Amino acid sequence: MTHLIAIGGSDAGISAALRARELDPSIDVTVVVADEYPNFSICGIPYYFTGEVAPWQSLAHRTSADLEATGMSLRLNTFATGIDVAGQRLTVRTPDGGTEDIGYDELIVGTGALPSHAGIIGLDQLTPTDGVHVIHSMGDTFALDRDLEQRQPSSAIIVGAGYVGLEMAEAFTVRGLQVTQLQRSPEVLSTLDPELGTLVHDELTAHGIDVITNTTVTGIQKTPAGLTVTGTRDGQAFTQTADLVLVVVGVRPNTELLEQAGASLGAGRAVVVDEWMRTGLPHVWAAGDGIITHHRLLGPTYLPLGTTAHKQGRIAGENALGGDRRFAGSVGTQVVKVFDLIAARTGLRDHEAVAAGLASSTVTAAADDHKRYYPGAHTIQFRITADTSDGRLLGAQLVGRRGTEVAKRVDTFATALYAGLTIEQISELDLSYTPPLGSPWDAVQVATQAWSTAQRPALVR
Amino acid sequence: MTHLIAIGGSDAGISAALRARELDPSIDVTVVVADEYPNFSICGIPYYFTGEVAPWQSLAHRTSADLEATGMSLRLNTFATGIDVAGQRLTVRTPDGGTEDIGYDELIVGTGALPSHAGIIGLDQLTPTDGVHVIHSMGDTFALDRDLEQRQPSSAIIVGAGYVGLEMAEAFTVRGLQVTQLQRSPEVLSTLDPELGTLVHDELTAHGIDVITNTTVTGIQKTPAGLTVTGTRDGQAFTQTADLVLVVVGVRPNTELLEQAGASLGAGRAVVVDEWMRTGLPHVWAAGDGIITHHRLLGPTYLPLGTTAHKQGRIAGENALGGDRRFAGSVGTQVVKVFDLIAARTGLRDHEAVAAGLASSTVTAAADDHKRYYPGAHTIQFRITADTSDGRLLGAQLVGRRGTEVAKRVDTFATALYAGLTIEQISELDLSYTPPLGSPWDAVQVATQAWSTAQRPALVR
Repeated sequence: MTHLIAIGGSDAGISAALRARELDPSIDVTVVVADEYPNFSICGIPYYFTGEVAPWQSLAHRTSADLEATGMSLRLNTFATGIDVAGQRLTVRTPDGGTEDIGYDELIVGTGALPSHAGIIGLDQLTPTDGVHVIHSMGDTFALDRDLEQRQPSSAIIVGAGYVGLEMAEAFTVRGLQVTQLQRSPEVLSTLDPELGTLVHDELTAHGIDVITNTTVTGIQKTPAGLTVTGTRDGQAFTQTADLVLVVVGVRPNTELLEQAGASLGAGRAVVVDEWMRTGLPHVWAAGDGIITHHRLLGPTYLPLGTTAHKQGRIAGENALGGDRRFAGSVGTQVVKVFDLIAARTGLRDHEAVAAGLASSTVTAAADDHKRYYPGAHTIQFRITADTSDGRLLGAQLVGRRGTEVAKRVDTFATALYAGLTIEQISELDLSYTPPLGSPWDAVQVATQAWSTAQRPALVR
Repeated sequence: MTHLIAIGGSDAGISAALRARELDPSIDVTVVVADEYPNFSICGIPYYFTGEVAPWQSLAHRTSADLEATGMSLRLNTFATGIDVAGQRLTVRTPDGGTEDIGYDELIVGTGALPSHAGIIGLDQLTPTDGVHVIHSMGDTFALDRDLEQRQPSSAIIVGAGYVGLEMAEAFTVRGLQVTQLQRSPEVLSTLDPELGTLVHDELTAHGIDVITNTTVTGIQKTPAGLTVTGTRDGQAFTQTADLVLVVVGVRPNTELLEQAGASLGAGRAVVVDEWMRTGLPHVWAAGDGIITHHRLLGPTYLPLGTTAHKQGRIAGENALGGDRRFAGSVGTQVVKVFDLIAARTGLRDHEAVAAGLASSTVTAAADDHKRYYPGAHTIQFRITADTSDGRLLGAQLVGRRGTEVAKRVDTFATALYAGLTIEQISELDLSYTPPLGSPWDAVQVATQAWSTAQRPALVR
């Protein structure tokens, strides 16, 4: 093994390359990057638009110089167009438009995902110069930045109210735009139960955002008044016009390269890999948002997350060098800040658990982040999901004010899910307590005890 | 079973009584409380002195009315003086000074601990009216409060720099007293490694506290200049005078009642119980700061903590009613706020692990609490201890600024310790990430990966 190629300059590709160089500095590692922005924090883009992050260069996890200092070679503005699996050669389009074949001993594909268009008519024809945006790359970022600067729009429609949609709604609001947020589901942040999503909805409304749910967007067009979005709302025709439209309705795996090379596609048309990140094609590995993830509770599922991409890339990098490490699986832990609210989840919600054949029950609970007598206490709202047949924790959702340590409290649940703990075992955890930061039974335990009480009102074992 | 008596109005006794009433509302439950302040948050007392908590009544976890609303009977200002084990009768001194015998079916003893005097000569003779204080009960609190109000002292010596000592140093400083903090060990907060204790030391110094380490106090006396503390510092004679002295040098188990009844004493002269909280005396259970705790990594140890007392009390309450719940054990998780710094630990430190016969190694690490490009990032300092023979996590220590979610990050380690995870498995945890609150590899994982790198520089398995 002398030459490893990683395709993709985002989490999976860079993690793979870093791990390979860390484990064996004698290996030549080349990273093929489609643009000139390797290792940028795509999750940080909304904070560039709020103005909290500046200049844009600081969004880089590491600079190109940092990366090259590890001994890897970066091929920027280089687009992988084909894999000759038998010949172990990668064809790329070079920055000058030419074609080049590069030999490899092992290849790791981390081509990630592309913004979904959700079948919206007109979206293919409209571009950032028309005021219609997606936000998935540094190129998208610069295009949006330019549009905001040049046209100075005063209103925006955001199609979608998931993680990025909510963060961008905050960013546009901070910049003074009047934001209308359109959501297909009955409640925003549909990765949470609506009982908690409604708290996020209220936070958006409190900051002047016009949130319209149950609304499916089917088309976008330029009109004299600006950009007009059409669709249906609660079954009725819906139309709304603004100066700018941002479409953030999720992603689809970017699998063209691997598909052409003969890899198998599965759920969500993502590439199938095994626990070692093998694609089944000899010497070709894959990681990140383009592949099917192993979920510890659900098995194979399409769940693109940066944290997962980092883990998978690291494993692919290690195994490409002859390692034998298995991806332990995701439990779907996610967190988002929306103005002064933090919303987090891990594991399964009730309907997901039921669909997986589990005897699931979900209970709402509330607990203070720290002792009420100490200033600044706030209530965290929980939804706890567990298996009624064996008491095993299946999932947790939390919403609390910023400062209530919701992001790291969800980690206790995520760790418990990893270890397969029961609700009763969570009461056995020796969690930290001091009155300014917790309670003798941490909020996490108050919430799981509420599940127990609801399920087993007077159990003495 | 018709009548359960719990002795002690603090964490263990009240938790036992609450659990019993919760599980079987037909049981008569009596709680015998030595003073008139059941279920007060002793851990909150320092924040009464900072002025952050007022009035003192708000330190009650629950009011007497709340407790009685659960159906339990409170016998306040009632002191348990003897147990007739064979006759199943408890003798108490009633508020009027009389004696009464109360029959019980099951008895749970949660008499807790008393302040240690550490053999300091003169301490027995000096009282709050002399300006010499301990701080372990609401009575101590009122006495100190009165002294501060009446004498308006301008300087204080705090003997001890553990959790309560540090919190009281902050409180006195906030109130304008010049504080001298004396510590026997080479560094403050000796439950942490000195590499991290020094950060706490710096925080104290930055707030004007005169910290003097390597100083053993052997005597206190009244002098014309105030109260003079004498002892040795680095082997030399030491003397220091102030208007007020607070001695917070730990606690000793309050076992007189159980010892007289025939219970066995063990480590630290605390009462021996089994995992079910049985004392070995028929129908007599014990929980809390008076007993030997089962530590998951060390076995039997004396480690008085409020969180543990709550768990043990709950278990004793359940088992006294015929339950079969075992105390899963502590891992020694603790956290303290010192001005704007948070210091936490869980599990073992290197010397503790080595003493327990483990092949331990400890590594220092540092990681940002969230992405550096987002405002307000601070570095958390870690010490990670793990077993070099099998990679199992043994302990973690963390110090970071307030707001870095150190208190709930230590919980991830505590959960990992409970589940027996290895350092490598911690990298597999699916922890939450959003740039304002974390990193794709959480600080917890950056720290454990630093341990791996230090131990196994180029391992490919």
